[in-house]
Amino acid sequence: MRMRKVKWATDYLPTANCLVKEPSKQAGNWKKLMGTDTLHIEIGCGKGNYSLDMAKMYKDNGFIAIEKNESAAGIAAKKYDEDTDDKHLKLIQDDASSIGEWFGPREVDVIHLNFSDPWPKSRHEKRRLTYKTFLDTYKQILPKNGEIHFKTDNRGLFEYSLASFSQYGMVINKVWLDLHASDYEGNVMTEYERKFSEKGQVIYRVEAQFKD
Amino acid sequence: MRMRKVKWATDYLPTANCLVKEPSKQAGNWKKLMGTDTLHIEIGCGKGNYSLDMAKMYKDNGFIAIEKNESAAGIAAKKYDEDTDDKHLKLIQDDASSIGEWFGPREVDVIHLNFSDPWPKSRHEKRRLTYKTFLDTYKQILPKNGEIHFKTDNRGLFEYSLASFSQYGMVINKVWLDLHASDYEGNVMTEYERKFSEKGQVIYRVEAQFKD
Repeated sequence: MRMRKVKWATDYLPTANCLVKEPSKQAGNWKKLMGTDTLHIEIGCGKGNYSLDMAKMYKDNGFIAIEKNESAAGIAAKKYDEDTDDKHLKLIQDDASSIGEWFGPREVDVIHLNFSDPWPKSRHEKRRLTYKTFLDTYKQILPKNGEIHFKTDNRGLFEYSLASFSQYGMVINKVWLDLHASDYEGNVMTEYERKFSEKGQVIYRVEAQFKD
Repeated sequence: MRMRKVKWATDYLPTANCLVKEPSKQAGNWKKLMGTDTLHIEIGCGKGNYSLDMAKMYKDNGFIAIEKNESAAGIAAKKYDEDTDDKHLKLIQDDASSIGEWFGPREVDVIHLNFSDPWPKSRHEKRRLTYKTFLDTYKQILPKNGEIHFKTDNRGLFEYSLASFSQYGMVINKVWLDLHASDYEGNVMTEYERKFSEKGQVIYRVEAQFKD
């Protein structure tokens, strides 16, 4: 989803407390840095609500929100800094294609993908965050049997992703084809999800796991 | 879907040309019997339109429609007998739990499941046609890399089946989360599908494959 440019973000981001400026320097050290045993990353956090609410819900867990868009990352950073509730929450403002450099092998416990860019054209398949080269990287930074939790309102991307996970050799543990009509408890909504589900848009969700 | 009892079915079925009365006697012999190299079975054919239309569309392929409900099987049988178009189409009226006795190892090329009974209660999970014990039997009668083509309008059954296929070790090749809104060509509709899709019901479809 394209968003309007947020002018103050450029100045604010470098000063943000939650921002990790050189994430590759923390590779292998994140859990120690954040004082947690369990590390989640959200790739493409947008304006940041999901990781913030998750971090407040799961206080013992650490969350790293990743967003390349400066305006969205700026809004997320401000939100994280201003929320003084005790939480383990950091932000990386950069392109997720480098995550393999930011995290050590098996360092991340769960990867969250929320409403990722669908890149609907076939020639852009490689840019989809559920394309096999991304799965290669996820597998590397996740432990054995590590999980991806993915939700979207985009039917085409969800259809593609189920097949992509499965063809990669991942196991699909659970699927929701209308998350908000299901009995799934504790759903933490993104800004986008709240807006579009109110319009009657179906939200899809899947938990998929690497097998080895 | 429960259907009204069709009184003439009891008398008609034993006389139907398309009916195979002792299917286990044909195990290993079906392709020869039907004069085809490619054998499809549809488990739970209801009133039979799908296998009939498929048999007319794929003239070189053989189709065996299976239905335990006498009334539905009677209607299908009459339809198959009265349609004089050249086709390879047979009917078995019996419970599909015995299919492992009716077909030899690797004898069936594709298994079609259409709008199977969802058995929504957890305690009835074992009765769902995509439960692992059924997958055991399907694997036995299908060749290496054999495929199941499954469609339904039941969200719960579809969610369950995707996870069941994947957890069994099958690969999900392609998924449609709104078949009638997709660019899928050559969709052959069942009676049920026509009726419910006209009411705006979403139709789900998956092609899943055994890996070895």
